[in-house]
Amino acid sequence: MNGRLQELYSFLESNELDAMVITQPKHIYYLTGFLNDPHERFMGLVLRKGEEPFLVVPLLDLERAQQGSSVTAIFAVSDTEDPYALLQEKLQAVSRLGLEEEHLNVIRYRAMMAALNAIESVDVTKPLHAMRTRKSPEEIVVMKRAIHLIEQALAAGVSHAKPGMSEIELVAELEYQMKKLGADSPAFNTIVLSGEKTSQPHGIPGSRQLQTGEFLLIDAGVLVDGYHSDITRTFAVGDIDEKLADQYDSVLQANLAAIASTRPSCTFASVDQAARSVIAERGYGEHFITRVGHGLGLELHEYPSVHGDNQDKVYEGLVFTIEPGIYIPQHAGVRIEDNVWVTKDGVEVLTSFPKELTIIGR
Amino acid sequence: MNGRLQELYSFLESNELDAMVITQPKHIYYLTGFLNDPHERFMGLVLRKGEEPFLVVPLLDLERAQQGSSVTAIFAVSDTEDPYALLQEKLQAVSRLGLEEEHLNVIRYRAMMAALNAIESVDVTKPLHAMRTRKSPEEIVVMKRAIHLIEQALAAGVSHAKPGMSEIELVAELEYQMKKLGADSPAFNTIVLSGEKTSQPHGIPGSRQLQTGEFLLIDAGVLVDGYHSDITRTFAVGDIDEKLADQYDSVLQANLAAIASTRPSCTFASVDQAARSVIAERGYGEHFITRVGHGLGLELHEYPSVHGDNQDKVYEGLVFTIEPGIYIPQHAGVRIEDNVWVTKDGVEVLTSFPKELTIIGR
Repeated sequence: MNGRLQELYSFLESNELDAMVITQPKHIYYLTGFLNDPHERFMGLVLRKGEEPFLVVPLLDLERAQQGSSVTAIFAVSDTEDPYALLQEKLQAVSRLGLEEEHLNVIRYRAMMAALNAIESVDVTKPLHAMRTRKSPEEIVVMKRAIHLIEQALAAGVSHAKPGMSEIELVAELEYQMKKLGADSPAFNTIVLSGEKTSQPHGIPGSRQLQTGEFLLIDAGVLVDGYHSDITRTFAVGDIDEKLADQYDSVLQANLAAIASTRPSCTFASVDQAARSVIAERGYGEHFITRVGHGLGLELHEYPSVHGDNQDKVYEGLVFTIEPGIYIPQHAGVRIEDNVWVTKDGVEVLTSFPKELTIIGR
Repeated sequence: MNGRLQELYSFLESNELDAMVITQPKHIYYLTGFLNDPHERFMGLVLRKGEEPFLVVPLLDLERAQQGSSVTAIFAVSDTEDPYALLQEKLQAVSRLGLEEEHLNVIRYRAMMAALNAIESVDVTKPLHAMRTRKSPEEIVVMKRAIHLIEQALAAGVSHAKPGMSEIELVAELEYQMKKLGADSPAFNTIVLSGEKTSQPHGIPGSRQLQTGEFLLIDAGVLVDGYHSDITRTFAVGDIDEKLADQYDSVLQANLAAIASTRPSCTFASVDQAARSVIAERGYGEHFITRVGHGLGLELHEYPSVHGDNQDKVYEGLVFTIEPGIYIPQHAGVRIEDNVWVTKDGVEVLTSFPKELTIIGR
């Protein structure tokens, strides 16, 4: 049994649960290696105190489960069979049942509680989320693939960018490259913004065309084997004036300062502050209107939220984004976003796309 | 107040509910016109007996809600405020509460029940699903845009297809076209299969290259303003032999027969049977291994499931796919999928991409 399952069995013991049914597909992947979307059908990983875990999958996914899952006891349920009856048969009555209450809908929750005659349920989302924050070297290998792939797509996409091209055309080009390079899908709707629209942290790409003398901001990522990458780079379209260049450099220095400040035992607030103080010193303090970063992994946004009020401590194994920005309304915005992995005494920066100001389209 | 909201108030009255909180974003869109993904934040449409409905949205979506929602009483909740406290303040105690139990997770369900001191909950998913099956002319306008867009993308994509191109390259090309033409996103992972892989109804595109004398199967759709399109066409790469041509023609005749058979009051089983008997007569009966279709709209797969055991009756306003296929294992598959809207005395076929065998790449 792998360490993750062992950790979950320890939680089960210490919380005096009789059994646990994990139903979130991402968590079944995390615990067994089997990545699957069962759509509306039932899929569950069952841990019963003192017994080996088993997996319940839709019949049409059985072959893939047998190939992908490290848990080898697998029961298949056809479309005419009742998965809850199977749970009942295998588990009998369960007094205290662990379930992912943040994920599970009410109908399924009731069906499981009733099938197992459970008296009480305990939410097991938190220990799973906590485990997931400490990324293993094996997970980093996958995340590096997701990052490498988006960086290749970004390089290829940007090589096509030129004045007159619309934001939406560049989105199409970037997502074409992602697909062609082998991404499972974009990690989110690719953001391409130009000119004054770069000042919107969550702007939506449209028909606006790239123009010389302006910024081009690209925020993009891909999904590879369940893991997300998320990178932002801001480019100059042709030559830009000194004011814009100063805005860019301020963000770059803030990005570097935040990265340099990050190590185990410092607070998340201090990481945010490291970036924020550089930007304030350069005179743009009021225009850094977002948190500095967020956790990244099986979800695009996961623990931690890296902001000025978060007094939690950084610890080894976390992966999060560092993405300071300066957003001057109706004028120009710059964001430079990296993905970092916290090591024993600092961070490994997983993103490697150049950060010095790059001029495109001339 | 629009007819959909009125219908929901009638359900509320007849089921003696004191109030209803709708939380599924698709349903809030359906009832108010406001299409929004609140991510992890709370969003809800509240109907209280005898009172006007109101909407609760995250503060950062307020402006868009004010623009998009026909329900004009809108309350915004910032990230530091508690949406359940707001519900409590506005609703006071509620004895019987209508909730979407198939959608709502257990944590949120408990929070709402507790905040409102509710004694009992009633699932309101079913009346909403039932309403959604009867598509209005306005919804058909949007669905036609989604269908027109995928047909344009398909035409453009296929014009690039030629022997030697890989399945995955053609996927990238098609999704590039979708984006460029203005789709919000693909409706699902685009399926492009070639040669013997066309025999897999849910095959996954890979590096296999198109080859002369084989089939090319494309199953694709887009999402436009919340609505899905879903079309399949099978093409010949260069000339194909008579056997393959006969397989193609058998599916085409089955598709036409199923469409011709569909009218209000016939059973879904009879639609399936109309296609199945053509395919059986042509000698391919054992190779039509799927249902003939599924409902389409705000979801990619919704009511009805059009299969041989479904004795429910067809009625006006439904939109579903008609997609018979012949899948000869390890050899060749053909599927021809249209989207139809049930009218007073038959159907309107919403898809218009040619169905006669088209030879590409020569």
